[in-house]
Amino acid sequence: MFKRCRVVLQKALKDEVRGPNSSYSNMLKDPSTKYSGFQAIYLTDRTWPNNHIKKAPRWLATDLRDGNQSLPDPMSIEQKQEYFKKLVQIGLKEIEVSFPSASQTDFDFTRWAVKNAPEDVDIQVLVQSRERLIRRTIDSLEGAKRAIVHTYLATSDLFRNVVFGMSRKEALEKAVRTAKFVRSLTKDDASQQRTNWTYEFSPECFSSTPTEFAVDICRAVKDAWEPTLENPIIFNLPATIEVSTPNVYADQIEYFCRHIGDRDRVVVSLHCHNDRGCGVAATELGLLAGGDRIEGCLFGNGERTGNVDLVTLALNLYTTGISPDLDFSDMKSIIDVAERCNKIPVHPRAPYGGSLVTCAFSGSHQDAIKKGFTAQEKRRTEGDNSWQIPYLTLDPQDIGRNYEAVIRVNSQSGKGGAAWIVQRNLGLDLPKPMQIDFSSIVQDTADGLGRELKANEIISLLQSHYNVDNCANNSIAVKDYNFHKISEQSTHLDAIIDFDGTEIAIHGEGNGPISSFLNALSKALGIEMEVETYAEHSVGQGSKTKAATYVKLSCNGVTRWGIGMHESITRASVNSLVSCANSLIKARALSEDSVKTEDGFAETIEKKVKAKF
Amino acid sequence: MFKRCRVVLQKALKDEVRGPNSSYSNMLKDPSTKYSGFQAIYLTDRTWPNNHIKKAPRWLATDLRDGNQSLPDPMSIEQKQEYFKKLVQIGLKEIEVSFPSASQTDFDFTRWAVKNAPEDVDIQVLVQSRERLIRRTIDSLEGAKRAIVHTYLATSDLFRNVVFGMSRKEALEKAVRTAKFVRSLTKDDASQQRTNWTYEFSPECFSSTPTEFAVDICRAVKDAWEPTLENPIIFNLPATIEVSTPNVYADQIEYFCRHIGDRDRVVVSLHCHNDRGCGVAATELGLLAGGDRIEGCLFGNGERTGNVDLVTLALNLYTTGISPDLDFSDMKSIIDVAERCNKIPVHPRAPYGGSLVTCAFSGSHQDAIKKGFTAQEKRRTEGDNSWQIPYLTLDPQDIGRNYEAVIRVNSQSGKGGAAWIVQRNLGLDLPKPMQIDFSSIVQDTADGLGRELKANEIISLLQSHYNVDNCANNSIAVKDYNFHKISEQSTHLDAIIDFDGTEIAIHGEGNGPISSFLNALSKALGIEMEVETYAEHSVGQGSKTKAATYVKLSCNGVTRWGIGMHESITRASVNSLVSCANSLIKARALSEDSVKTEDGFAETIEKKVKAKF
Repeated sequence: MFKRCRVVLQKALKDEVRGPNSSYSNMLKDPSTKYSGFQAIYLTDRTWPNNHIKKAPRWLATDLRDGNQSLPDPMSIEQKQEYFKKLVQIGLKEIEVSFPSASQTDFDFTRWAVKNAPEDVDIQVLVQSRERLIRRTIDSLEGAKRAIVHTYLATSDLFRNVVFGMSRKEALEKAVRTAKFVRSLTKDDASQQRTNWTYEFSPECFSSTPTEFAVDICRAVKDAWEPTLENPIIFNLPATIEVSTPNVYADQIEYFCRHIGDRDRVVVSLHCHNDRGCGVAATELGLLAGGDRIEGCLFGNGERTGNVDLVTLALNLYTTGISPDLDFSDMKSIIDVAERCNKIPVHPRAPYGGSLVTCAFSGSHQDAIKKGFTAQEKRRTEGDNSWQIPYLTLDPQDIGRNYEAVIRVNSQSGKGGAAWIVQRNLGLDLPKPMQIDFSSIVQDTADGLGRELKANEIISLLQSHYNVDNCANNSIAVKDYNFHKISEQSTHLDAIIDFDGTEIAIHGEGNGPISSFLNALSKALGIEMEVETYAEHSVGQGSKTKAATYVKLSCNGVTRWGIGMHESITRASVNSLVSCANSLIKARALSEDSVKTEDGFAETIEKKVKAKF
Repeated sequence: MFKRCRVVLQKALKDEVRGPNSSYSNMLKDPSTKYSGFQAIYLTDRTWPNNHIKKAPRWLATDLRDGNQSLPDPMSIEQKQEYFKKLVQIGLKEIEVSFPSASQTDFDFTRWAVKNAPEDVDIQVLVQSRERLIRRTIDSLEGAKRAIVHTYLATSDLFRNVVFGMSRKEALEKAVRTAKFVRSLTKDDASQQRTNWTYEFSPECFSSTPTEFAVDICRAVKDAWEPTLENPIIFNLPATIEVSTPNVYADQIEYFCRHIGDRDRVVVSLHCHNDRGCGVAATELGLLAGGDRIEGCLFGNGERTGNVDLVTLALNLYTTGISPDLDFSDMKSIIDVAERCNKIPVHPRAPYGGSLVTCAFSGSHQDAIKKGFTAQEKRRTEGDNSWQIPYLTLDPQDIGRNYEAVIRVNSQSGKGGAAWIVQRNLGLDLPKPMQIDFSSIVQDTADGLGRELKANEIISLLQSHYNVDNCANNSIAVKDYNFHKISEQSTHLDAIIDFDGTEIAIHGEGNGPISSFLNALSKALGIEMEVETYAEHSVGQGSKTKAATYVKLSCNGVTRWGIGMHESITRASVNSLVSCANSLIKARALSEDSVKTEDGFAETIEKKVKAKF
């Protein structure tokens, strides 16, 4: 049912495959020659690739043991306590807290954990296969409601031979002896019946161990411990060092699950490291292959490249519609605790937790996300709450992030990015040609600064560029106005405007507010302004509804956009015209020739308008 | 040969599987309900899990395009140039440099790359399927020796429907039109024959696209382009967003490779992102499934969680005995360029590149690595140069790192760690009981400081703790000495020592240098010191060989270790005795009662020794 394959080619074959022109074969020395491939078990009748993950596994967090022992600066007792509480808050029910026989610090922390753990949380501790150390370890667990004693023994050839100088037979006998000894001190000891004891055994470097031998030694340990249906034994199968593509680990797990026997009294636990960057994948394929339980750390802390990342595994389940039975809704506080206690940052690109992973900078991505949200709004009104947004597998709100962070704007961003920020913050749905107009302003600014623009900077840029109400340096401000409807086709306007500090009464006629206001303004400034485009929409709902108005005016061949917002639609229109007129003034569209005055205020205006050229 | 499976359970089934006591099913709202699983293709007759990676793929670095567009602060032109040069130095032969039609900056950089690329490097550029933009893009490549024009089109249902509002038929027709248009401007244009043109097409969100449709559209594009054996077409199959376990991507790749047709005129390119943390795994399984080429970025930069990490993929190949045909021997300079230009750090736990990934802090790991190196030294003398070190898949020297960084020491470390540092730096192979003695000093110091100890701190600690030559605060220093061999069994010593600033002549007898020196010292100090353990070994080779001597003396029930090193074995022994005697003095082992003087210098000594209590 399986065969062995050395995943490596002979040097001669390698050169043949690579060809004589390969850059590396011309190099003086090729480091790849000193590495041999991994001697793997391959199942030819594997079934795991047809399986699906159907439910959440059991989770064991080893942040306080495997994670902590790999830190340049290990956690203080206070940090371990804080971290433990956070793990409980997330919903972890099995927590490996220490190596109690290794130091007084670890022993003391185990005592604290025993006293402070909720009743449904298993305290797990690791110990070597040595009687003196095991006694000390069991002492540390005294009074625990639930405890998992975790022992390990090197089973891989390299570790057995080089590190321990122990034959397979000796290793197997030692593992059995250890299981019996732990048994005598725990579940077989009448004075220890307050505690629900579980035994966990790790054949160390399982993934580098001949799989048949791993099965043999675990079967022997199982017989020695005699697990029950109610209290199965845990076999933890570590990829202590990741040595192969993840499908090989899955084959090993499937082989183990098929051959261990008493499968309903055995919990198969997956403990992957990440040396080849495939820890998450190996664990997921291991679940497909029969794994029941996962050991890992938040954000993949742990020896070298880390233990497998529990956050990624749990939230991956989310996005396939399966609840991990863990709560990451307050991601920020989880990151805070992990970074503070581990003194290792969560990488900006770490799945789910990274600061950049819900951000899109490129224009096409931003545009797609924007359209996705619009389509989703529509689906929601039809009762469909499913999450389908381009580029975003997870709703940022599910991990306590807001949408503002989704789209960020720099010089690479297209029109969609800035438009999204404006929409999310002000509720303004800029017309597409106006998005393009604004986008070039944003890009130039970002390019000039050589950095990303924050949301508030983009808002400020919009307000100043389009001379939104009360913007500094505006020439014109409306003090008062009054529209008189003369007939269905005719409206008269009287208004007072402030023009660079001078109040002017203006008057105009048109077929509605916009045309009459524009008429009045044109006459007062002595120029011709024409409406090229006009659009409006409501913002918000109920009593807080506002009108947003967009207008594009042309004057002497120069065009500018304006925006107006107000509770009154009419006032919003007036504001948009003023916004636009101010832009035209700033653009010096009112050339000297075009200024023709017609009443008493004209000279002042003329002087002022001229002064702007 | 394949079936569709929705990788999701109905809510009712989920509750059943999870059980009523599940913590999450009791929560008010379960976010997992809004996610649906991914509609995947499953090959029931897949062959990829039985395959092995046999040679390096073609590599395409998209750091300057996909990587750069995802940076909060994109690269300056100078940074892009520096990065490009580094990619060439690593050995990349295909480099995607920009999106030339998107901005003048990208256009200008493409011109620079065309002019500065080595003749065997393909310049790749990305462009949307729009004629105006394609023209501009081809313009940017004028004069290139080798160029790859990369176009893309949304093919997934979500992107087609929500973002582009385009039917499958319309998408297919547009893709064909684009291929023909590019063809007319490049390989079919008589004026463009200076350049070797390659066409690359990406069905966007390939992994979320119904695979049969991806095949259909690519077959049509292939027919439109008419690739040759000498110049095949590249189909890039992006997991634009990672949506499934990596085995599903492999199934999709195998299906595509089987059905695309003209397989020898097609290069299947893998472009994985890392949203589920499985980008490396999906790419490796994709290679098993038939992929020929990989697109990625150094250290996994790129949109959101990043493109797949080229460094990890390349060095993973190394450790299975296959040369990636890329050169990462100067990892430090590569990290420097990537961090400076991307302004994003390489994570301490990033495979291969991370600062912590070749470090071991825990005692048992350090011990295993130390034994591994010893066994390897032995194998080397037998002509076996293979790399087999526990916990280290890659020789740190292959990426330009030294062994000093391998083992690092903090309060969690066992005896092995400090002993390793001492061995690597001073060549001293401390006897095991002495390792334990020194280890407790190191642990206490690290615990007290609450941080890791650097190698030089450990060396200083060793020198001060064991009063190695010229250590400050030593009471005794040897000024001169002379051994007279009286007979085979008898040696006489005359020596002058400095005792706290006073020179004293001392004399002793014994059966060799050690016993006679100890006899002299004991008489002079009026105390009895006995040798408990003694060991020595040579350090170094040839004319630089030194002797290292370790001695453990007892005095009044107090024991201390001493170390001596010298070109002369005799002097090394004397030094170790003096080192030890100084420790005993500091330990106040010379209690008041034990000081008995016997000659003219005695009073001075007595006073000085007494002054120490």
